[in-house]
Amino acid sequence: MADGLPILKWGRAYDRTLFARDATAAVIVTVMLIPQSLAYALLAGMPAQAGLYASILPLIAYALLGTSTSLAVGPVAVVSLMTAAAIGNVAAPGTADYAAAAAALALISGGLLVAMGSLRLGFIANFLSHPVVSGFVTASALIIAAGQLGPLFGIDVRGHAMPQIAASLAEGAGGLNPRTAALGLTSLVALLALRRHGRRGLARLGLSDRAADLGARMGPVMVVVATTFVTWVFDLAAEGVAVVGAIPQGMPRPSLPLPDLDMMRALAVPAVAISLVGFVESVSVAQTLAARRRERIEPDRELVGLGAANIASAVGGGFPVTGGFARSVVNFDAGAATPAAGALTAVGITLAALFLTPLLVHLPKAALAATIIVAVLSLVDLSVLRRAWAYSPGDFAAVATTLGATLFLGVEVGIGLGVGVSVLLLLYRASRPHAAIVGRVPGTEHYRNIRRHAVETAPGILSIRVDESLQFANARFLEDLIYGEVADRPDTKHVILMCSAVNDIDLSALESLETINERLRDAGVDFSLSEVKGPVSDKLAGSHFLGHLTGRVYLTQHQAVCDLARRAGLPARPEAPAN
Amino acid sequence: MADGLPILKWGRAYDRTLFARDATAAVIVTVMLIPQSLAYALLAGMPAQAGLYASILPLIAYALLGTSTSLAVGPVAVVSLMTAAAIGNVAAPGTADYAAAAAALALISGGLLVAMGSLRLGFIANFLSHPVVSGFVTASALIIAAGQLGPLFGIDVRGHAMPQIAASLAEGAGGLNPRTAALGLTSLVALLALRRHGRRGLARLGLSDRAADLGARMGPVMVVVATTFVTWVFDLAAEGVAVVGAIPQGMPRPSLPLPDLDMMRALAVPAVAISLVGFVESVSVAQTLAARRRERIEPDRELVGLGAANIASAVGGGFPVTGGFARSVVNFDAGAATPAAGALTAVGITLAALFLTPLLVHLPKAALAATIIVAVLSLVDLSVLRRAWAYSPGDFAAVATTLGATLFLGVEVGIGLGVGVSVLLLLYRASRPHAAIVGRVPGTEHYRNIRRHAVETAPGILSIRVDESLQFANARFLEDLIYGEVADRPDTKHVILMCSAVNDIDLSALESLETINERLRDAGVDFSLSEVKGPVSDKLAGSHFLGHLTGRVYLTQHQAVCDLARRAGLPARPEAPAN
Repeated sequence: MADGLPILKWGRAYDRTLFARDATAAVIVTVMLIPQSLAYALLAGMPAQAGLYASILPLIAYALLGTSTSLAVGPVAVVSLMTAAAIGNVAAPGTADYAAAAAALALISGGLLVAMGSLRLGFIANFLSHPVVSGFVTASALIIAAGQLGPLFGIDVRGHAMPQIAASLAEGAGGLNPRTAALGLTSLVALLALRRHGRRGLARLGLSDRAADLGARMGPVMVVVATTFVTWVFDLAAEGVAVVGAIPQGMPRPSLPLPDLDMMRALAVPAVAISLVGFVESVSVAQTLAARRRERIEPDRELVGLGAANIASAVGGGFPVTGGFARSVVNFDAGAATPAAGALTAVGITLAALFLTPLLVHLPKAALAATIIVAVLSLVDLSVLRRAWAYSPGDFAAVATTLGATLFLGVEVGIGLGVGVSVLLLLYRASRPHAAIVGRVPGTEHYRNIRRHAVETAPGILSIRVDESLQFANARFLEDLIYGEVADRPDTKHVILMCSAVNDIDLSALESLETINERLRDAGVDFSLSEVKGPVSDKLAGSHFLGHLTGRVYLTQHQAVCDLARRAGLPARPEAPAN
Repeated sequence: MADGLPILKWGRAYDRTLFARDATAAVIVTVMLIPQSLAYALLAGMPAQAGLYASILPLIAYALLGTSTSLAVGPVAVVSLMTAAAIGNVAAPGTADYAAAAAALALISGGLLVAMGSLRLGFIANFLSHPVVSGFVTASALIIAAGQLGPLFGIDVRGHAMPQIAASLAEGAGGLNPRTAALGLTSLVALLALRRHGRRGLARLGLSDRAADLGARMGPVMVVVATTFVTWVFDLAAEGVAVVGAIPQGMPRPSLPLPDLDMMRALAVPAVAISLVGFVESVSVAQTLAARRRERIEPDRELVGLGAANIASAVGGGFPVTGGFARSVVNFDAGAATPAAGALTAVGITLAALFLTPLLVHLPKAALAATIIVAVLSLVDLSVLRRAWAYSPGDFAAVATTLGATLFLGVEVGIGLGVGVSVLLLLYRASRPHAAIVGRVPGTEHYRNIRRHAVETAPGILSIRVDESLQFANARFLEDLIYGEVADRPDTKHVILMCSAVNDIDLSALESLETINERLRDAGVDFSLSEVKGPVSDKLAGSHFLGHLTGRVYLTQHQAVCDLARRAGLPARPEAPAN
């Protein structure tokens, strides 16, 4: 963090060649972003043009503060769904209140991300484990696809979870608009065909691999242009086909939409969820691209960059944004060399927002729905359920809970329960560290698990090795373990805790050790430690524990056993391996 | 769990001698429990007699299902405060609704505890770390003591957190009842004197140590009897001294107060908090006593025993209960030999509830307040703040957050934030495992940290050892670490992950390994593993990871380095220890 703003690093070496690369990438990304941005704005319950606004300032803010050279920040499907679900609780779609709440949500999320980054709290993103993210993204994609069947067929859809969506689709099926459905289904089929065969077709026409790849990604643009043209020629809007309609030209005046306390309270939980999901998505995309160029991403800086992008989105009349996979890959493949490519894309989209909006009057919403459905279907990966099932019950529980809860109870409950299950698993694993009763390998100074090796133990001496740092999550385990083993061996006079694998002892564990020491003393057993590491030893030295210890702290386990056996006048006896 | 009900174990050996011991203990505990139970009932916002009801059936239920021979279950201070805070939100004290809600709370907590025990979820109690429990108990004791200044001086007090209590004390100070205050303060001074000097005084009178100890614990009984007598003789109730008053004689009819869904929702969070706090307190008391006799406590069974006690309390017209330290120690010191002592105590308290209640008409509430204040002051331990401060910043944050939030925002927020901070700390520590770049100790096959040892590394080969199981909490750390180190060493061609300390790899970590493998491949680097343990290896064999691995899995780190160096035709070069 010592080397200042990222822009100072790459800005110094910026030249004409890099500019040419960045500008080319910017043109390509601009064209691709327009339909995507419009579509995701509608998905978020916002007016279509808000998608353009949300693609301008955030790109510039990220270019200034982010660490990835290729990440393109803007509206993405999953975060747009989360936005719609969150704002749906506080305002009605299409109202000024709704837009204000969406901007407030972006502002709060942005503030959270910047705060997390400044406090170097990037590790919090670990709360979202891979299985939870997979389950969540798959469920969200299914919800989005189902919800977009509404505009695709011209049916009103309510809700942001499967039961409500299915019910409103079933209810509205009678009122389906045939022209809308025809337009929507045609768009869908065209997009699927282009996605499937477009690349190969273009390559056959003699385009280079990279050009063919980029061309195939232009499918949504072509569909949008074609359907807009058809709708205009046949005046389908008059026949009930829903269109984007007249959009106020120009740009919204920048404003900082400070939410009041009630709004803050209502949006706090969704803002946390959006921040975490957005960050995890974004970092994962950024790392994928950075690794290809052997560049380094700094997660705590990414938090700041992404947070600034969200605050910028709020200022510019947008809604929550994050680094999107599709747009970033296009940016990368189109040759973006520095974050300036993002800023140039912002210029392109500004021009579009200023001059192209009159053309959107006839753009049918069904075509945008088709582009969303095709885009999100690629996110659906139900195989994660099978893989998790095959791999471990805990991981399966995390995936299945997240997937099921998101589908049926909504995005916030889904992500919340997923995190809950992950934390429970973490605590569960942390609460049962590997531990063993050890004995001496005959003729050596090595002490090994008596269950696995033919070792010898001295009568009255119980040696226990714990293979993990001692902390609150396993403090009670340690107590139960020691009391239990002592209760099972009534002849025990000495307990040695072998600390060779203990890297840290927290206050809970220290107090457990004190309690163990006292309780063993009350039972006439003394308590010693062996092989305590340097840093742990330093930490213990500052506490009262060592003063009260009934036994001693030995440098090695062997010294401990020899000393205690000698003092008791006992020979070491061999013990058969236990069952 | 295979050996059936605990009662079957000790019941078989039950004889006259054991009965005599248990009966003696029961008489002593009964006498001591009466004022305590009445006082904690008032603290919980319940009528005084509910404290007796809550001390009968729970004792029997625990005697049947619990594993501790000495634990005495009933109303305790901290849980009573939590009950008052929880029910205060849903009903007004003194109403039938309030009593019904308290019973419902006991029922829900009991159900939760039984469910946790049956599912062997005792590990969940680990969420409450020692520092959090210390901070919480100290803050609760301070809140209780402050709140009891109200009845002690005859002032109305509202609220269950310091700001409200202080405000209502300040507000009501003018309306203080001098007779109540005199009675209350006299009781308080008498109790403090008895606690301080009673034991020594009785010993001087020739009583045995044990008898003197028990006698000193009878202070509250003496104070209750004396103040009741004084209040009756001078008819102080007519002068505005608040008394317990007429109590319906006999016992409430047993009933199962099934709460409706709204009530369940309102009480769910407090029930979870009460279950956890009650369980942790109870197990800690039970373990302390068990260790003295070298007996074993089974935490999952304790959950069931305690849960049954709470359900029994609900059925008998009581409120949430748990194993109390004071009453259990008396039980233990009085010589209770088996859980039957608890059942006999229940008989004693039933007799008291049936025949002694008319005597309570004149019992002044100020005397009960004094007994509560003296009892809870022994729970206050502010030194934990100093110890935590000296020991580690993370532990201090947990204690201070819990203590401050409980004092100023209430018990539920306090315990919630305490758990939150603990879990954050757990995740934080888990997210930064110890890891090292390793090199070969010259002339050996040992590989050690290059920062600590003068070791040699082969050019192009980067060996990283992670000293912890790979799981979701550290999966991202591993990715960042490997990408970062590879980015810093542009000549890297091979990465070896040394897994000698990896006991488990969860699905998140497996997917991270797959991602690392892919990204390194894209950067022209291959990825190998070494020293993979048997169980981990088996788990990996079931996945696709090994099939895609660009490098190999080597038995030892040395084989890995030799093989990769040989294939590259490179000699090993020494590397100076890094700074």
